[in-house]
Amino acid sequence: MANPTVVTAEPNRQELFITREFNAPRELVFKAFTTPEILLQFYAPFGIKMKFNYADFQNGGSYSWTHSDGADKIYCTFKGVIHEIVAPERMIQTAEMEDLPKGGQVCLEIFTFEELSNNKTKLIIQDVFRSIEDRDEMVQSGFESGVVAIFEQLDELLIEGKIR
Amino acid sequence: MANPTVVTAEPNRQELFITREFNAPRELVFKAFTTPEILLQFYAPFGIKMKFNYADFQNGGSYSWTHSDGADKIYCTFKGVIHEIVAPERMIQTAEMEDLPKGGQVCLEIFTFEELSNNKTKLIIQDVFRSIEDRDEMVQSGFESGVVAIFEQLDELLIEGKIR
Repeated sequence: MANPTVVTAEPNRQELFITREFNAPRELVFKAFTTPEILLQFYAPFGIKMKFNYADFQNGGSYSWTHSDGADKIYCTFKGVIHEIVAPERMIQTAEMEDLPKGGQVCLEIFTFEELSNNKTKLIIQDVFRSIEDRDEMVQSGFESGVVAIFEQLDELLIEGKIR
Repeated sequence: MANPTVVTAEPNRQELFITREFNAPRELVFKAFTTPEILLQFYAPFGIKMKFNYADFQNGGSYSWTHSDGADKIYCTFKGVIHEIVAPERMIQTAEMEDLPKGGQVCLEIFTFEELSNNKTKLIIQDVFRSIEDRDEMVQSGFESGVVAIFEQLDELLIEGKIR
């Protein structure tokens, strides 16, 4: 059975936390979340296709990716900048869904990779929003099932030894 | 008398707002906060010297600046990335003070420039922190007097017609 994904969103706060353990060393989990070629293999759930419009995962870099059906139907495009990557423990980026009616709905996203015993890794994602409303909208969007799915896809890549 | 600077920091929130009107058109106020050569002329209070280590104020750009006494004494260095610039209404960036004991204490900073009547402009800065503690630390640091001073320095530049 897959490790549980825990989403914590306290009432009246503009942040949420996603916590998930992986049965793999920190270097590999860190690599998975900071390497475009690997992200393409797991960061879209439910058969959705992902492509990067640009991807420069380094300090001061930026990225943009699109989820689609692989043909004409685009589900969403996200863009952001990379504030800091401290390998293998932390990545700080911004993330904003494009083409929303109200511009500027950006989120600050901090990935922390903690080394556990037995070669396991705890990933903690902190998402900080511009408002409680933005945070609540995200919680109510049902994003959690997608996150659970992509983490399980990453489990598969790790088990199959596809991340080295 | 200078226009008032209003800092709003509600209890138990991880954000603060700084609001200030300028008696100048929005294009000029926007330009002042997004142009390194102009920032150097007002963005350090109390005779402190400012220099940019790098400055690329555009979408996906990044910056780093240092406040010092102009000789050996460095007061602080800040770095960040530019998530988005939408001229003349918005700039979204990250900001982090370097060399703190705990890394990753980043802040998400949104500058909104609102056009008022009579060629005036309202600047609203929203600072979103990773925790209530980080926010409270900033409030208690006495940053407000510095902010009031730099806004008055910007008033001077605008009155003297030095920003066109």
